[in-house]
Amino acid sequence: MNQPRLAVKQDMSRVLELIQELATFEKETDAVEVTLSDLEKDGFCNNPKFVCFVLEVDDFVEGIALVYKRYSTWKREVLHLEDLIVSEKFRGKGLGTKLLDTVISYGKEIGVKRVSWEVLDWNEPAIKFYESKGANVMRDWDVVHLDESGIENYLKNI
Amino acid sequence: MNQPRLAVKQDMSRVLELIQELATFEKETDAVEVTLSDLEKDGFCNNPKFVCFVLEVDDFVEGIALVYKRYSTWKREVLHLEDLIVSEKFRGKGLGTKLLDTVISYGKEIGVKRVSWEVLDWNEPAIKFYESKGANVMRDWDVVHLDESGIENYLKNI
Repeated sequence: MNQPRLAVKQDMSRVLELIQELATFEKETDAVEVTLSDLEKDGFCNNPKFVCFVLEVDDFVEGIALVYKRYSTWKREVLHLEDLIVSEKFRGKGLGTKLLDTVISYGKEIGVKRVSWEVLDWNEPAIKFYESKGANVMRDWDVVHLDESGIENYLKNI
Repeated sequence: MNQPRLAVKQDMSRVLELIQELATFEKETDAVEVTLSDLEKDGFCNNPKFVCFVLEVDDFVEGIALVYKRYSTWKREVLHLEDLIVSEKFRGKGLGTKLLDTVISYGKEIGVKRVSWEVLDWNEPAIKFYESKGANVMRDWDVVHLDESGIENYLKNI
């Protein structure tokens, strides 16, 4: 198996396939509104919105990790891992570990004091994997979303 | 009561006081490593790391909302509300609502498809407040942190 490498624009179509595959796994098949052109633009402009690592097996991308910086009012800039995805047929073969290693090394390299991500609380294999790596799965912190229609409804009522 | 306004650099000392007050409320008194100079630099450089709104009562800042953009692989750029803080003595007087209104309006203005934030699952007043505004408190999504010492330990073991 290779080591992960930085994605190039030409990887984005496969990256989008894996994003879609994860959405389906999370029972949110229709939630992916991002397009190939969006990813190509957003990741490879003068002020990229994310950094993506890809991991190939036999010259085909089977795993990705997509990260960007956030701002903590406690720790200053921190690194956020938005997606860590391994194609279904390559799960359990160590690709996730290699990708997470790369992300944590990258966090150290850019000098952040925290790497954060989110996990579904019923995804026990993922939670066990993360905890085995020393991460703190904060079961008392929940994620809150106000989505597009929510934003519209909200603004109608103020 | 005034409407929230964009913070200026001179507000940051009061902003830091409120950040510290919230950390104490969340039983994390010693977690705030950010300094006044950090906030002044990070929020008011050429490429600001956050946008902060402040709300004054009698010419004194009693509430803040601090936001920045993230990247969703489903929705492209989204707005993240990192901190919504109202000073203890002004809680329950509508300051939080005004600040959240401002944040959601700002999200609409910059065209994001989602506003996100995080909440402690034992903070029922906050959860009720957010749900009353139409937000989706995703109790099955947990936040994961690998902090500074965790990063060091992680890297020793790969």
